[in-house]
Amino acid sequence: MEHFYQNAGDLRKTSLEGFYRIHQNMVQLRENPCYLCRKTQKDPSRIALISGGGSGHEPLHIGMIGRGMLDAACPGEVFTSPTPDQIVGALSDLNPQNGTLLIVKNFAGDLMNFEMALEMANQKCRILIVSDDVAIDNKSQRRGLSGTVIVEKIVGALAEKSDDLNACWEIGDRVVRNTGTIGVALSGCTFPGHNRTTFHLQPNEIEYGVGIHGEQGVERLRDLTIDELIHKMTDNIITEISLKPGEEVLLLVNGMGSTSLIELQSIYSLADDFCRESGLKTIRSLIGNFATALDMKGASISISRMDPELLQLWDAPVETPTLRW
Amino acid sequence: MEHFYQNAGDLRKTSLEGFYRIHQNMVQLRENPCYLCRKTQKDPSRIALISGGGSGHEPLHIGMIGRGMLDAACPGEVFTSPTPDQIVGALSDLNPQNGTLLIVKNFAGDLMNFEMALEMANQKCRILIVSDDVAIDNKSQRRGLSGTVIVEKIVGALAEKSDDLNACWEIGDRVVRNTGTIGVALSGCTFPGHNRTTFHLQPNEIEYGVGIHGEQGVERLRDLTIDELIHKMTDNIITEISLKPGEEVLLLVNGMGSTSLIELQSIYSLADDFCRESGLKTIRSLIGNFATALDMKGASISISRMDPELLQLWDAPVETPTLRW
Repeated sequence: MEHFYQNAGDLRKTSLEGFYRIHQNMVQLRENPCYLCRKTQKDPSRIALISGGGSGHEPLHIGMIGRGMLDAACPGEVFTSPTPDQIVGALSDLNPQNGTLLIVKNFAGDLMNFEMALEMANQKCRILIVSDDVAIDNKSQRRGLSGTVIVEKIVGALAEKSDDLNACWEIGDRVVRNTGTIGVALSGCTFPGHNRTTFHLQPNEIEYGVGIHGEQGVERLRDLTIDELIHKMTDNIITEISLKPGEEVLLLVNGMGSTSLIELQSIYSLADDFCRESGLKTIRSLIGNFATALDMKGASISISRMDPELLQLWDAPVETPTLRW
Repeated sequence: MEHFYQNAGDLRKTSLEGFYRIHQNMVQLRENPCYLCRKTQKDPSRIALISGGGSGHEPLHIGMIGRGMLDAACPGEVFTSPTPDQIVGALSDLNPQNGTLLIVKNFAGDLMNFEMALEMANQKCRILIVSDDVAIDNKSQRRGLSGTVIVEKIVGALAEKSDDLNACWEIGDRVVRNTGTIGVALSGCTFPGHNRTTFHLQPNEIEYGVGIHGEQGVERLRDLTIDELIHKMTDNIITEISLKPGEEVLLLVNGMGSTSLIELQSIYSLADDFCRESGLKTIRSLIGNFATALDMKGASISISRMDPELLQLWDAPVETPTLRW
């Protein structure tokens, strides 16, 4: 046994069943079509938030359902977009008077299916595309990575008391424009049912600029120290989102599945050092596994520019399986 | 780079620094000797709770510091007991009027150093030994594993409002006697500075009854399905702590470092099925990485018999970096 599952075909179902049993005081699990939503349905006048994407990125997005974050999440099969009928199912269930914001990570399949669902549902909806991956130069091709958690938290806080769909879209887009992420990996991941990782590295190699589907990154680095690696990652983000000395930021260190907390804490310490050296003030932080890629030995750093309004929304109460304060 | 650290010698220090910066609203970090305690010191009349052990098991124990759980934690070097002066440092700092309970996982080195500290400190103290590992027949040799989290949560809730050291010890001992854990691994772990795992398994092998230091288990199993494995684990625990149909339990699924959440959720689902088939009522649950072994691909299941008093203490408010409700 190389993983704690046998039948790759049952993995989503068994895993969702486990998630539901643990968190049944907070969430409901619907089947045919499959989606999860809050146990206590929302006030129909406020904006609904739905997200979704392939399974294998747990706790994204199912762990973000709850007061102050998502209303519903649609998990596809492993690394596979949710089908339009899953999304339509969630939309029909929530049926909000003033509209729904669909938060979608920038992957072609996800976008296509969310757009199709939007047409089918014939409800007032807007799609917010998350594209925080600054490893890719072409902005339209930037993927949605761990910055998605920051977007969902901040938009979730606004949507909790808003009936204005455009205002929710705009605050989300502001977070996306002010957030940058770089992912790196020391191994590929193992797709369920396959018995080897998606790529293989030598002990002195690092895959730089990876996504969360086990694909190779934009560059293979060799013989870097951990300081040099973390410095390069933070520098890259700071440049791409044009952070200037004196600015206040949220620093997120995300594990991708097989990275231990002792390592994530070390990464945080080094990344925070480099932020300080760049004159930034790290005023909020988050650490843990949020946007994972099955069993990938990888980590990502997200830096998000804060302002008083974003900070207030970040600090607002949240009660989900993953975030709670 | 095979792990996100370079210099094994700096790992504890860098990692603790990261932990402290993230959670500085809740904890203080002291150096020379090294220990961590709550940011807001305790009411001196109530019982203090201190735990500790080697690093490499994060979030144990540092992530359990806060209201409703520990007052302080003493992290040793990786897989190494804290030194007596670390423990004496924390004891002298807290200096409670009515005594301190030292929660110690049953490992010879940990016990020796906590006992030495107890003699040196010359304060009113008792040691509570956690030995939830039911894979080992000889009860005196049973190790402290993921059940430690349950012990620290429940004793922490009582200590928050108690000035009775013996009552705190007794409730803790009741949890230990009513909690069983089995750990399994699909790989060994990599000790910092070494470049191979502590043991190597074939794809059809499972190490059964492992601890949290990368040591081999009590038995090597071959060609089991995941259902058979989880059934064996839960059955073993149910037998060892003599659970009877109709009893209420807390079910904890713990990852050991490199096990993804999608896998842990699947394990939970299967373990809960077998608990139900045995007539047990799973009334509380917990999932995540709590007692880890660096990068071990492993998981443990803990089952803890609940009664109305234990349940009330489990449900009591807690506010730590790891648990919060």
